[in-house]
Amino acid sequence: MQHSKEPTRISNAVIKRLPRYRRYLNELRKKGVEKISSNELSRMIGYTASQIRQDLNNFGGFGQQGYGYNVGELHKEISNILGLDKNYKMVIVGAGNLGQAIANYTYYYKSGFIVDGIFEINPRLVGIKINDIDVMDYEDMVSYIEENDIDIGIICTSKENAQEVADRLSFAGVNGIWNFAPVDLEVPSHISVENVHLSDSLHFLAYHMSKSE
Amino acid sequence: MQHSKEPTRISNAVIKRLPRYRRYLNELRKKGVEKISSNELSRMIGYTASQIRQDLNNFGGFGQQGYGYNVGELHKEISNILGLDKNYKMVIVGAGNLGQAIANYTYYYKSGFIVDGIFEINPRLVGIKINDIDVMDYEDMVSYIEENDIDIGIICTSKENAQEVADRLSFAGVNGIWNFAPVDLEVPSHISVENVHLSDSLHFLAYHMSKSE
Repeated sequence: MQHSKEPTRISNAVIKRLPRYRRYLNELRKKGVEKISSNELSRMIGYTASQIRQDLNNFGGFGQQGYGYNVGELHKEISNILGLDKNYKMVIVGAGNLGQAIANYTYYYKSGFIVDGIFEINPRLVGIKINDIDVMDYEDMVSYIEENDIDIGIICTSKENAQEVADRLSFAGVNGIWNFAPVDLEVPSHISVENVHLSDSLHFLAYHMSKSE
Repeated sequence: MQHSKEPTRISNAVIKRLPRYRRYLNELRKKGVEKISSNELSRMIGYTASQIRQDLNNFGGFGQQGYGYNVGELHKEISNILGLDKNYKMVIVGAGNLGQAIANYTYYYKSGFIVDGIFEINPRLVGIKINDIDVMDYEDMVSYIEENDIDIGIICTSKENAQEVADRLSFAGVNGIWNFAPVDLEVPSHISVENVHLSDSLHFLAYHMSKSE
């Protein structure tokens, strides 16, 4: 992960919390709420009010003493910081259940993340459509990514195939990989990788359950 | 989250890394590797050797100076710490694509996490089988959980329904909730919740991509 354009170094811990702030602000915005105090945010989100003020101060003061935060502006600012002020073109690799679930998820999610195509090695799946998205032959993936300026590759394959897929995605020129296979990938340093390791998440849950018995 | 039985408080950051250690140790074990040094682990996992030694020292010394770690023992110890020395019975709520993907995932994953049943509100899906698991009527979920001593409920519903599902799961007596809906749930404090917020993960990826351009 590179942070070369970041003027001040913001900790990953703070960045990790921003999507959560954004989610709550989005709900408030939809309900027509225009301003909110750090105390009110605290009650909703569950962080302390001082933590919230500290987090949001990292990006310049969005709040005014005695007034609170402007919900719309804060939502927009956080969106910009997260890089959500642009659209991302994505391809999914692997049209199994997980790939289909992700295709559905992004379809209904209606965000700036658009799935352009799905690539699959199994000839029985090549040629079908999932939510109006073509399932194409994996062999054609590199040229498709090059021709269509794809930003993100989503790996929904088995762990055995994941590194080979990551190599091809890197070669084809994506800037980010969203990896659902339970392996840690090796990619060139200019490519960002975000892992969703389901087994790790389940094991973390088991840990907390065994400790609270 | 409660940690009442934990004799020394281990930070969540360390615990979060344990599933990853376990994953690598499991691969080594399958390859027949019997011992490994912190330096070798470091090259594989990507943490520094001193970080690894520090992490593993939290649980008593598994390593011996000049010998390294016993792969099998360390794998077993970490498994025990994570609460993986027992089986967990789970139900999935929501038989859509995501619920089906999770059902498949756990089926092929062949771990101590077993999906016993899937519950669904849509009558067209009730009665089918997914990987030999019955899809049952959501109305019957509470009594099923009570009668079958289910440990974990997996929420694969829309965000609008997720809190209601969490309330019913809590009432029925699960100890843990694995939540895939993009909301933060309110549950009694004795119930552990682990969230897989896909949108947060995607936004975090976008952040890193926009910073490394």
